[in-house]
Amino acid sequence: MKFKIIIPLLLLSLFLKGQNKQDSIILKSIFDEELGHGQSYDNLRELCKGYGKRLSGSPIAAGAVKWSYSKMKSYGFDTTFMQEVMVPHWVRGAKETASYHITSGSKATSVSVCALGGSIGGKIKGEVIEVRSFEELRSLGKDKVKGHIVFLNRPMDDTKINTFYAYGGAIDQRELGANEASHLGATAVIVRSMSLGINPYPHTGMMMNYTDSVAKIPACAISTKDAEMLSKDLKQSAGLSFNLEMHCQWLPDTLSHNVICELRGTEHPKEIIVVGGHLDAWDMAEGAHDDGSGVVQSLEALRLMQKLNIRPKHTIRCVFFMNEENGMCGGLKYAEVAKLNKEKHIAALESDEGGFTPRGFGFEARGDTLKRLFAYKNLFTPYYMDHFQEGGGGVDIGPLNELGTLLIDLNPDTQRYFDFHHAATDVFEGVNKRELEMGAAGITGIIYLIDKYGL
Amino acid sequence: MKFKIIIPLLLLSLFLKGQNKQDSIILKSIFDEELGHGQSYDNLRELCKGYGKRLSGSPIAAGAVKWSYSKMKSYGFDTTFMQEVMVPHWVRGAKETASYHITSGSKATSVSVCALGGSIGGKIKGEVIEVRSFEELRSLGKDKVKGHIVFLNRPMDDTKINTFYAYGGAIDQRELGANEASHLGATAVIVRSMSLGINPYPHTGMMMNYTDSVAKIPACAISTKDAEMLSKDLKQSAGLSFNLEMHCQWLPDTLSHNVICELRGTEHPKEIIVVGGHLDAWDMAEGAHDDGSGVVQSLEALRLMQKLNIRPKHTIRCVFFMNEENGMCGGLKYAEVAKLNKEKHIAALESDEGGFTPRGFGFEARGDTLKRLFAYKNLFTPYYMDHFQEGGGGVDIGPLNELGTLLIDLNPDTQRYFDFHHAATDVFEGVNKRELEMGAAGITGIIYLIDKYGL
Repeated sequence: MKFKIIIPLLLLSLFLKGQNKQDSIILKSIFDEELGHGQSYDNLRELCKGYGKRLSGSPIAAGAVKWSYSKMKSYGFDTTFMQEVMVPHWVRGAKETASYHITSGSKATSVSVCALGGSIGGKIKGEVIEVRSFEELRSLGKDKVKGHIVFLNRPMDDTKINTFYAYGGAIDQRELGANEASHLGATAVIVRSMSLGINPYPHTGMMMNYTDSVAKIPACAISTKDAEMLSKDLKQSAGLSFNLEMHCQWLPDTLSHNVICELRGTEHPKEIIVVGGHLDAWDMAEGAHDDGSGVVQSLEALRLMQKLNIRPKHTIRCVFFMNEENGMCGGLKYAEVAKLNKEKHIAALESDEGGFTPRGFGFEARGDTLKRLFAYKNLFTPYYMDHFQEGGGGVDIGPLNELGTLLIDLNPDTQRYFDFHHAATDVFEGVNKRELEMGAAGITGIIYLIDKYGL
Repeated sequence: MKFKIIIPLLLLSLFLKGQNKQDSIILKSIFDEELGHGQSYDNLRELCKGYGKRLSGSPIAAGAVKWSYSKMKSYGFDTTFMQEVMVPHWVRGAKETASYHITSGSKATSVSVCALGGSIGGKIKGEVIEVRSFEELRSLGKDKVKGHIVFLNRPMDDTKINTFYAYGGAIDQRELGANEASHLGATAVIVRSMSLGINPYPHTGMMMNYTDSVAKIPACAISTKDAEMLSKDLKQSAGLSFNLEMHCQWLPDTLSHNVICELRGTEHPKEIIVVGGHLDAWDMAEGAHDDGSGVVQSLEALRLMQKLNIRPKHTIRCVFFMNEENGMCGGLKYAEVAKLNKEKHIAALESDEGGFTPRGFGFEARGDTLKRLFAYKNLFTPYYMDHFQEGGGGVDIGPLNELGTLLIDLNPDTQRYFDFHHAATDVFEGVNKRELEMGAAGITGIIYLIDKYGL
């Protein structure tokens, strides 16, 4: 009896060891090809330099869609197509300006400023009240806030190792600031940029829609450097008058597209594994880390599989989602169509945390599924990518959760991310070729394993 | 009997868990202090902007020594002193130039070039022979090589994940090229820069001393971009004449210093744990990653312990070594004095792989010692610094090996290192504040544990 159990176990163990070795070799071939002859970096350059400020609804975004379709077509995958999606269209208009004037002083101090995505424009002049939280704001009450410009100046927490947690702890100011301040009668809101440390760049980003019950007021971000300066001047000066001028506005919704290509599965062509990022970007720079990196890495996953003659069992679909930044219409439309067409999506991976050296993956899975995924960790140790964690996803693939799809995100190193995020600094030159490529190869590796062994 | 064994084990296990928790808290306090109020970044700025091209023997290096001593003194540690060391003094002289002229063409192509450290100067004109290895060079023989300029153009291997291995695989060209080529009668040697990918920056670095048996010939590096261009032109053109002019020379050895400070041990003051980096840097830029980062991180380790009131049992000594780049006289002198004074050095850690996000540590240890050190891994997992590996050290602490000292190196992410190493790009602005600080805190953490528990 014992032998009957032991021998099959031994064989299984030997078989698994063999598999493991074979998988190691495939992973190495993926990394070798990408680091030696990768195309992700050149593709990122084309996208960033050709279609920099590709905010949803803009002519540049339309150009980026065309570029994406042509680029996918050029690789000769099994399928390439566009999926229509209506997207919001917000424009910054002429460059916004801000300055302030200390009552006792003689000259104005200019401030680096940018409108928050979704804000109305306007020309506002007024005194500033600085607070660090909504509690503090509310405690001041309508009497003190009414007619003032509210300045939300709580810094991101430098001590968080994963900087996304620091972001999470400060973002309420950007998202809800206008509504909270308007509720108390403020005339505008200034938010300290979501960036770590002190730098001269204002960082934009989406604010929540204005609540119907309150007046719409302009909302902007100023750089952390200027936030420090303004705060100091507010403490030292008896009176300070702030001037803000913004020209942003909403235009009618616009037709745009998700752009999609596929390697068709040899065994389960109707079962889909998605890999993607978002094609749209803020209008401050080139969207190199956010999320040019994610789209070119996703495309590279298909190119690498094709190049290395890895024929997937399931259909591997690369999706360039439109409108992650200010509406997530692309992700919602994609899931809606998938549901309508009764497509089976077994897994979806999103890369949207910048083109930095990858550390591992996050998996929105539990129990045995998670255990099976964690069993791949050792295969990623040679690439320093073995920080596997429970919990993962992404804004664009999130809506697929409803379909029972396993959600995964690539987790790069986060230390530099908020130097670039939504700011004028997010240009192609800020991305390191090898770091980008490591991510592209890692994505391909995990997709290869999930395709081969299922879930 | 059983209970007698089990209860102490249980108590020990509970004790260890308690210790582990306490250590976690200390480590967190170290990271919090550094990421929230670190001084390493400001110190790096001072060093880089005040004393950029601090090559051994230069007046700038002497200034950097003074700055270091004052900086250490300003923290009020238990001891601060300088250790005399004679160092070589090589100077680049006026900026070197290179260009080539295709016989059939009409105009010269200029090339970005830098003398290798230790090279003689000279004005050389001649035809170029390109090879990829010494085997290829030797197979050509004296007849073909004599009177020519040898161009060593083997790229670093892009597919190595740890880029130091790629460096190791190409560095023979820089170190031995002049001697090998001169042995066959070459008039000069041009080396492809030790850098990954294609970029326009020549990277210098030390070459081995000229062998007495061969003529001294000038040796230089050209950028990888120009190496590609030259290689292409050599293939396409019937004749190509290369001009090289370099003004470098050796001056007499100069008195310099290692700069040292200490927190005295409360229990074993005569047992020393060293933490250090090298103060000297190449004369191409500011030595920000190489190795300004290492010295400011090492100093920060002592500052953090002092600030957090961690009184070490052993003496913690921070050493800014002089002359790592072209002679390693500082490291040799330090070990010599330690031996002479019969100092007991239990461990020495060097940070000299750039101020990038740390991944873990390398330990030059075996068996039980290694096991005990590896037991600290989990404490570093929250900081993504748990890639602990066997094998470690550094050029400056290497000579302590003889004294039975445990050698350790900080291992940061290596993907970007050879964008900066020994090139004009290695400036303060290339270092990210948080990445630098993560390394400083990590170093402090491992030193704290080794001090607390011994080896």
